[in-house]
Amino acid sequence: MAYLNENYLKLQAGYLFPEVARRVRDFCEANPDAVKRLIRCGIGDVTEPLPRAAINAMKRAVDDLGNRETFHGYGPEQGYEFLRSTIAQHDYRNHNIDIADDEIFVSDGSKCDCGYILDILGEQNKVAVPDPVYPVYVDTNVMAGHSGAAKSDGSYEGIVYLPCTAENGFVPEPPKEHVDLVYLCFPNNPTGAVASREELSRWVDYAREHESLLLFDAAYEAYISQREIPHSIFEIPGARECAVELRSFSKNGGFTGVRCGFTVMPKSVVGRTDSGKKLPLHPLWHRRWSTKANSVSYPVQRGAEALYSSEGRQQVRALIEHYMGNAKILRDACAKIGMEVFGGINAPYIWVKTQAGLTSCQMFDHMLRDLNVVITPGSGFGAQGEGYFRISAFNSRENVEQVARRLQEVS
Amino acid sequence: MAYLNENYLKLQAGYLFPEVARRVRDFCEANPDAVKRLIRCGIGDVTEPLPRAAINAMKRAVDDLGNRETFHGYGPEQGYEFLRSTIAQHDYRNHNIDIADDEIFVSDGSKCDCGYILDILGEQNKVAVPDPVYPVYVDTNVMAGHSGAAKSDGSYEGIVYLPCTAENGFVPEPPKEHVDLVYLCFPNNPTGAVASREELSRWVDYAREHESLLLFDAAYEAYISQREIPHSIFEIPGARECAVELRSFSKNGGFTGVRCGFTVMPKSVVGRTDSGKKLPLHPLWHRRWSTKANSVSYPVQRGAEALYSSEGRQQVRALIEHYMGNAKILRDACAKIGMEVFGGINAPYIWVKTQAGLTSCQMFDHMLRDLNVVITPGSGFGAQGEGYFRISAFNSRENVEQVARRLQEVS
Repeated sequence: MAYLNENYLKLQAGYLFPEVARRVRDFCEANPDAVKRLIRCGIGDVTEPLPRAAINAMKRAVDDLGNRETFHGYGPEQGYEFLRSTIAQHDYRNHNIDIADDEIFVSDGSKCDCGYILDILGEQNKVAVPDPVYPVYVDTNVMAGHSGAAKSDGSYEGIVYLPCTAENGFVPEPPKEHVDLVYLCFPNNPTGAVASREELSRWVDYAREHESLLLFDAAYEAYISQREIPHSIFEIPGARECAVELRSFSKNGGFTGVRCGFTVMPKSVVGRTDSGKKLPLHPLWHRRWSTKANSVSYPVQRGAEALYSSEGRQQVRALIEHYMGNAKILRDACAKIGMEVFGGINAPYIWVKTQAGLTSCQMFDHMLRDLNVVITPGSGFGAQGEGYFRISAFNSRENVEQVARRLQEVS
Repeated sequence: MAYLNENYLKLQAGYLFPEVARRVRDFCEANPDAVKRLIRCGIGDVTEPLPRAAINAMKRAVDDLGNRETFHGYGPEQGYEFLRSTIAQHDYRNHNIDIADDEIFVSDGSKCDCGYILDILGEQNKVAVPDPVYPVYVDTNVMAGHSGAAKSDGSYEGIVYLPCTAENGFVPEPPKEHVDLVYLCFPNNPTGAVASREELSRWVDYAREHESLLLFDAAYEAYISQREIPHSIFEIPGARECAVELRSFSKNGGFTGVRCGFTVMPKSVVGRTDSGKKLPLHPLWHRRWSTKANSVSYPVQRGAEALYSSEGRQQVRALIEHYMGNAKILRDACAKIGMEVFGGINAPYIWVKTQAGLTSCQMFDHMLRDLNVVITPGSGFGAQGEGYFRISAFNSRENVEQVARRLQEVS
């Protein structure tokens, strides 16, 4: 009989977001009258229409597929050159960051890349993740057999957790011990924290000293409003030798349902074999894509390219201003009723301490039942998230203002 | 330092198709005059425009994304219900095959699914693959550490190869030994062979006796022209207990550049733990999608759905008739000059014995140099492919007629 991957059996109950969805569904079934009032600030899913530039480019691309002369079949497995070069130029070289076109690998989203990247990494790696953190980093490592069993607090044996607390501004210091692989995410999901140039430099120094690999998730970089905050790990000298960056069009272009992201894999990043031989990761990553995929839908790649046109950039900017306007309203509303708030300045997430010693899940239930507002319990992101919740600013202005009013009313 | 996945280092030179592309590129650079004459019958990539029904549906779906009221963000990770139910109804229940909507998992293509499925399977599995075969089955298993080292003939230690020869009609019999996991592909890439109901029944019997899992790749099922040939492994009684089916919209709807396929994972298929406990694979597969992906682009799923409309089905039928008309011309042209031909009746591939004892690669070079026609060397699909080559019928009628003429001229 076919053996199954037993690592899956170590996984805790539900992946956070489906579990939250289930609770909301149950509530709606039990309270049909509340359904109309329900406002979802849980999952970080965009709500506003796609930029017009992307719409037009995608429709033109679909038309291309309707004519023999302009038809596109299998594309290059690593993504079309038109998109790879546009990304490398606009997101990196225009900011004096040395990234070549063929160091960009187009994918169907950052979430997917989190799993894919483990394909090329060995199972001996000691992995460190921030706590709290986007659950996909941990879960994909558990699935790949890079952890031991689950502990009672939801954490896993064998994984090094880096506490992110109000005390360290939710930016962890490098650990004392040696780790091979470190996940970093700035602007952070769920805390909304950002890392300064100095903080990131300490991580690059650590990675170079320990020959570790940094997996830098910059999915929310477009939300950075403070000038001095780095947008890319590659702004830090030395990062080209020790970092891979993950980016997404989900949160700038609103591509959560369109599906497109990319990784930056510098040719100078090396990994080691068990016997200590050093080899670049780039050819393995390239091979992974050649063998396992056919890249992303052609119309989607054209849509992503259009986000970089001058029209597209203006429209993306407007989207981000809209969501960050929401973030300010939510932040202020929470602060006004005496809640302790973090984030929401360089990120579309507000990280809030629960009231009066409530657990995250009690707070979730309270917000759902009494305000009919869906938030995300902080404990779902890790043990250190207990006692916090996340509000997402991805919503209409009307809904956000409504949430602000309801917060006043029940306080 | 981060450990890399050393299994990648076992992989032979290039994945076949990029290697073929490289040789063609070199030839074109050295022979600029021949470029205009070049006809590509190598990679199995479609050439004709998308069905109008898919074009229209995709453009409507892109428009949906342009309005707040009809916007779609993250979709269900396993695919939209509208597509899952359409597939289950049209491809299965309408043919009296019992498949539930939630046994369909929408993906970005069959090639991708070949890799994804290994995520949920244990590394103890003894794997059997036909020889010759689509290289992705073997390469993804090598990458996942399910093989030993490569041997001099390009095969890998630890993998059981099932010879497909002219003698067995390119349909292998179940092996004498026990294997846990068997890849089957009918209609076959590269040989164009199909398996009869009796032949598939023997495989289902074997799988039930050995409690093995059959991974049945039916990407080319739309090309079956003979009434008695099964389109799905689930037409065979007992297959719901031992088989997973992979299908694609690449070769019926021309979606090679659009990217959409699906797997059918019956809830009755079980795997085992190391200690012998039996568990259904469906929850693991469901979890894999929840944690690692956000399904496929919304406009792409709408495009795939449209292939099942009455207009869509008619247009798909016309596409297939076009390609199968090509197949007949190529088959007849090869036969006319005395070549031994297989396939091309229920599949868009013609599998041809090389002339006068030439190796596959010599034949490839001859066809490229003297006919300016790109074919695929059979040896790229496995040791048993040596002495054969594959011609793809995916082309314009004009090009195919041209290839037929050139075959006459040089013979």
